[in-house]
This record gives sequence, C-alpha cells and structure tokens, in this order.
Amino acid sequence: MMRTRPLKVALLGCGVVGSEVARIMTTHADDLAARIGAPVELAGVAVRRPDKVRGGIDPSLITTDATALVKRGDIDVVVEVIGGIEPARTLITTAFEHGASVVSANKALLAQDGATLYASAQQHGQDLYYEAAVAGAIPLIRPLRESLAGDKINRVMGIVNGTTNFILDKMDSTGAGYQEALDEATALGYAEADPTADVEGFDAAAKAAILAGIAFHTRVRLDDVYREGMTEVTAADFASAKQMGCTIKLLAICERAADGGSVTARVHPAMIPLSHPLASVREAYNAVFVEAEAAGRLMFYGPGAGGSPTASAVLGDVVAVCRNRLNEATGPGESAYTQLPVSSMGEVVTRYHISLDVADKPGVLAQVATVFAEHGVSIDTVRQQGKDGEASLVVVTHRAPDAALSGTVEALRKLDTVRGVASIMRVEGE
Amino acid sequence: MMRTRPLKVALLGCGVVGSEVARIMTTHADDLAARIGAPVELAGVAVRRPDKVRGGIDPSLITTDATALVKRGDIDVVVEVIGGIEPARTLITTAFEHGASVVSANKALLAQDGATLYASAQQHGQDLYYEAAVAGAIPLIRPLRESLAGDKINRVMGIVNGTTNFILDKMDSTGAGYQEALDEATALGYAEADPTADVEGFDAAAKAAILAGIAFHTRVRLDDVYREGMTEVTAADFASAKQMGCTIKLLAICERAADGGSVTARVHPAMIPLSHPLASVREAYNAVFVEAEAAGRLMFYGPGAGGSPTASAVLGDVVAVCRNRLNEATGPGESAYTQLPVSSMGEVVTRYHISLDVADKPGVLAQVATVFAEHGVSIDTVRQQGKDGEASLVVVTHRAPDAALSGTVEALRKLDTVRGVASIMRVEGE
Repeated sequence: MMRTRPLKVALLGCGVVGSEVARIMTTHADDLAARIGAPVELAGVAVRRPDKVRGGIDPSLITTDATALVKRGDIDVVVEVIGGIEPARTLITTAFEHGASVVSANKALLAQDGATLYASAQQHGQDLYYEAAVAGAIPLIRPLRESLAGDKINRVMGIVNGTTNFILDKMDSTGAGYQEALDEATALGYAEADPTADVEGFDAAAKAAILAGIAFHTRVRLDDVYREGMTEVTAADFASAKQMGCTIKLLAICERAADGGSVTARVHPAMIPLSHPLASVREAYNAVFVEAEAAGRLMFYGPGAGGSPTASAVLGDVVAVCRNRLNEATGPGESAYTQLPVSSMGEVVTRYHISLDVADKPGVLAQVATVFAEHGVSIDTVRQQGKDGEASLVVVTHRAPDAALSGTVEALRKLDTVRGVASIMRVEGE
Repeated sequence: MMRTRPLKVALLGCGVVGSEVARIMTTHADDLAARIGAPVELAGVAVRRPDKVRGGIDPSLITTDATALVKRGDIDVVVEVIGGIEPARTLITTAFEHGASVVSANKALLAQDGATLYASAQQHGQDLYYEAAVAGAIPLIRPLRESLAGDKINRVMGIVNGTTNFILDKMDSTGAGYQEALDEATALGYAEADPTADVEGFDAAAKAAILAGIAFHTRVRLDDVYREGMTEVTAADFASAKQMGCTIKLLAICERAADGGSVTARVHPAMIPLSHPLASVREAYNAVFVEAEAAGRLMFYGPGAGGSPTASAVLGDVVAVCRNRLNEATGPGESAYTQLPVSSMGEVVTRYHISLDVADKPGVLAQVATVFAEHGVSIDTVRQQGKDGEASLVVVTHRAPDAALSGTVEALRKLDTVRGVASIMRVEGE
C-alpha cells in the first residue's frame, strides 16, 4: 500500500539540530517510510555558510537561498530550525503560501507571533507543528493539545530551561554561588558565552507563553508573561530553602485563576518542597508538571535541549505531518476559543519566604507582624535568630495576592527596625 | 465554521469510568464542541443493570442491548469500558462493521487480540484508540505512537500497576510485610477483594504486551510476556534493597536486544537504585520510563487508574477520533512492520541479587564463587555475614543472561554448604 512518490522535506538551518534531523532521515529512512506509509526524502537544505563541511548530506541539496527553497512548490514539509523572528517568520508563511506544512522548533517566534503563523497555516490548509519548541524531546505539546483535549487543565508548572536548572542544581548540591556555578555550566557547554536569554528567564518565558496558550485555549504572548531571572539567587537562599525542606528551581508557571475568568503566566525562581517531583529534576533535565481536572497530576520528564533530543521531537512532527498529508487532512490548529484575559503578576496568588535583617530588641516582631496584617497577608511561620545585637527574621506567608505581598515588603523596608530585606523568594508546589 | 449535526458517542459500560465519561461529556459539552469543531452528544449507554440509578444520564439513553446500540449505524464513536474479552471483542468489531470508530480502555483484550481489532478497524476505515488501556490518565500511547514516531525506542520500563506500587511503597516506608500492606491497600480501596490480577502481575503483563508492540513496531501478545508476581517479596528483601541503596518495584520492562534482532517483555519485582526516577514513584501512582536513541531518557508520570483519570484519557481519544471524522481521515493504525521475534526470559540480560544461607566454615565462598564462574556469571559484590554457626552470603552479579543466572541458582541449591536460597531478586535501572 506504500505510494512511490516520496514526501519531500526542506530543511531551513543545518546547525546542531538540523544536521541531526538530516542524519536520522538518512540513516532511518526505511523506518520512517514504514511508519508514514510513504518514503520521505530530504529535498533541500538552506544554510548561511554553504562551504562548511556537512557530513552525510548530498552537497547538491545545499543552498543559501531559503526563500527559493520554500517557494519550490513541490515541498511537503518545511522544517524550520534557524530560530529568531526574521527571516524565520516570512519563510514559514511563504512555505504555507506555497503548499507546504511546517515543523518548527522556534519558541521565540511562536511566543511572539504564533497567531500570525496559525492564521497563515489555516488559510492555506497546512499544518503547523512545533513539539521541539518547548522542552526538547519531551512529548508535551502533543499531550497538551491532543491527549488532554477532553480535560480541563488548571495549571502547568515546569522546569523548561536546562541551563538554569544545571546552575541551580550545582548551587544546591555543592553550595557554590551563582557565578561559580555559571562558570562551570559555561565550561561544560551547558551555558552559552552570553547566557542572558537563559539566566534572565527570556527562554523560559517564551515557553511559558506557548504552554499557557495551549493549556488554556487562549492567546498568551511573550509580553503577557511575568519574568524574573535567577542571577540573584544566592548560596544563602539555598541554605534557607534547605531549612524549610525545599530547594530552588527556576519555574515557568501557567495558572487558571480560581474563578476561571483569567489566566496568568510567569517565570521566576521559587522554593519548592523536596517532596515535589520537580525538586528531584537534576542537571540540565527538564520536567513539566500538569494539573488537570479529571487527569489529576501528571509529569513529563526528559532532556530539554541538545541536537539529538530536539531532532527526535522534530521528526515525530515530520511523521505526523506526512501522515496527515497522505490522509489529505490537517492536524489540530490554533485553539484560542476561550479568549481569557491574562492577569498581571499582582493578581497571582502565591506565598513568600522573606529574610529580614532587624534590630535585636523587643517589639520588632510585633511591628513586622502588624505590617503583614495591614496588608492582609497572613503569616505561616516566623523564625527569629539573634547574634551580636543584630537579628534576622525569616517569615513564610500563607497564600496571598502577589501585589499584597510586594506591598508588604515595601512597607517593611520603611520600618526603622528593619535594617534590610536580605531575600525574597516565592514558595510554590504545595 | 462549526457543523450543526452533532457527533454521536455510544457508551458501552457505565461503571466508575463510564459514568465519569458521561458526566464530563455533559458538563463540558461546550469545551468539547469548541475543541472538536462540532458538538458531540451521548447517543446511548449500554449497561447490564438498567435499574441502577445513574445521576445525570437521560434515562431514555440507557439500554441493555449493547449489540443493537453499536449496530445503529448513526454512531460515530463507540466507547468501550466494559473490559474483558467477550462480549467486548465482538461489540468492537461490530461497531467497526457499522461505521463507528472505537475508543477502548480494555488492556486485556488489546494484549490478547489487538491484531484482530486493528485489522477490523482498518478493513472498515475506522479508528481504534486506547490511551486509557495503559497507565490511566498518563499520555503514553499517543507519545509512543506519534511523538516518538521519528525515533528508535530501545527500552520501556515502568510502574504500570497502582495497586502493587501502593503495597510495595507501604512495605518500603513502614517495614510492613506483604500481607499487612495488602490488607491496608484493600481497606483503602486500592486493592480489589480478589487482588490476583494485580499482585500476580497479570494486569501489568497485559500493559507490557501493549507497550512492547507499540514501542518496537511488532506484535507482542500477552503470552509472550514473562510474568512473576510480587506476593513473595518480603520485608527482608526491602532490608537487603536498602543496604544496596535500592528499593523494590514491580516493573514492566520491554527491551530491544542489543543486536536489534529481537525484543523481550517481562513483568517482575526488581531492585532499582534510589537515584532512579522510578524509585520515587509513591503510593498508587504510575510512571513509565522510555529510552530512545535520539530523545534519550524520558519519563511519564501520573495517576494510573481511577474513574476521572481514566475518563480523561478516554475523552482525549474521543476528541481525536471526532477530529479525524470531521477530516474524513483516520489516525495511525497498527504498526507491526518490523515483525521482530519475542525472545524468552532466558535470553534477557539482567543482574541478580541473591541471598544464600550457608554453613559458616572456610571454603564456602570459594565453592559458591566457582559455581558462578562455571555458569559464566561474573560477580559484582559479595557480602558475608556470620552468626551462631550459620552465615549468609549476599551476592550481586554483573549482567548476564537470565538463563545463566537461574542455572547458577539451581546449582547453588545443590551445594551441601548452601542451606537455602533465601531470596533472588533482579536488579534493574543502572
């Protein structure tokens, strides 16, 4: 029953991921053909530097003219692994206009302008798949879009950036400070020379936008995501976390508000209990925790980056798109029917762990407690430690709106008896 | 763009899972319609006891004639949640013959005769989906069949039975014996009055057959799966496991042989290191670890049973099947093109942890070590403990074929100096 005309794949970008996609397409051609129901062949590879040696790829397939490649008209699937906003966006929409479906790993573009891509795909009757854009090899987009399509997702919380998890894991396990752990991550190739996109949470925020949009069937853009990096997490924070039976992770958290009328998406470091499944995610691994009304609590775990894992996700999508084409059908498109507003960080309900340096004299705790009460923030635990006329107060709050919590901290800073706010960290996962 | 004729779902069985499917279809009808692109309605519910009160289900939908229901001809999707081989099999094939696709949670039937169901589905151009048959709400079948369709899976290892995991977790955390932990599981509703299917590994073996078939694109039937229950695991075994930095889990393990020419599937209790992600799967949760060539190591975790979680999986499939019907397409069918043989347990390469009661005199260790060597089994560690003229030897082997290991144990039993083999446990996950 296998048809003989092969399905044609055009590859845009041939770096770490693209070259692995090309390699697997060649070495596993028979398996891919059997699973799709038709052979699939690499029809062209657009690169910036055509002179670079690319083992295993027929040199006649290499071109620098990506636009001409996506316009050829005989391409079934365009695989976009160049990243960034332009020229990726124009190449993708041009591919749709010329009758190709698209598999993309481009989280930045999907987070910033996914709606444009979806609209173009739909207009031209093509598929847009992007499993590789979030959490590398971990099947996550498909489970959220398809497996949980009959359920109501209330929360998605995950470690979606391997670089920062590697750094935080090192700090936790060795007691190292941020810079020392970053240096090790850089030396081992886990962090890029300019680590800003990772450590400042931009990468995770793009993924949070994508996950929130899918989970809640609404549009969430990068700008809607609250973002705090993890460069200010200290060894002292880890020591505090340990005292609470917690560790610290950079989390992407997408939540439906309790009343169901809005959603939030945020990225920031947070303490989570050691008993939480995300606490044991080590090194550069990713894991995403999903809470759904009927399914309960699910977790998806695996390598979040790297050439081979990302290529696995890309090729899973290539197989799906090829199957759809043989069926003359398309897979699920954008699902944004709920049109839920995205609330600001101030409306997020969370908990704070606050360390204060205070004067070591009677009445300080009463003063501090009054400030919390005035802001409607209920205190869970307080720990007081005195040393040489100085003292520290560690306060862990109950759940309250983030605006009330940050208002509390602002008021605490103005107290004469508070010498300084040593650290503020949100507490999640309880 | 929404079409007005609703898609019609017939429900076979209205127990814990079926009633939850019906409830969610009613309460979340608008969401399901938006996600499918057409309304979906419950068109009939076949039950054995029509007089039982079923809250929320229109009594006019209830019938005892399941055959007439699947033969109606206007049904789009038949949801089979009655379980067992017959009448489920005949009802499913009859549904295909009458133009309906099928969503099933029936692991026993799929493991015993999945090929017949697939052939019937294909012949009649219908879909057969069964996410709920393995690991309840955890998206696993779809990730294996679709997300990893571009990769090569080498191993699937998981905790796929919640009852036995609950029992083993209790034994581990409280030091209880098997019977005591089983009694608690029964009292809490985690174990059935007759727990045989769970504790003897039949349930897990059915799931192993399904997973192996999908992972390796070949046919694996229940009879191909080696099966050992966990009723003989003792508190002493857990003590030994702890000494090795391990715990004990009932595992379903599906592996591709190192030479790629065959596969194996097995269910048995095994020691796994506490550092392995499966070791921290507590209570009645399920988790499945997947190793693929490009993706690396993935894990899927969540509730493995229960009405709501299973209904979530069923409804995800209902949405997928409905989308396919609107597309006039079908999803992926059986993929068994590799036709790999299933090897017997003797050919599985694994490790043993063996506790021997031996005479406390010189030369015993030399005798024992000779037996291992004669069977080509290399010893990793030996621990000797003497007490009152008796002594125990705990031997942990390196990896060897299971036949060589069991041959070794048989020979050890015949040694005069070996008073008894106190326990044998396989060691996995390293």
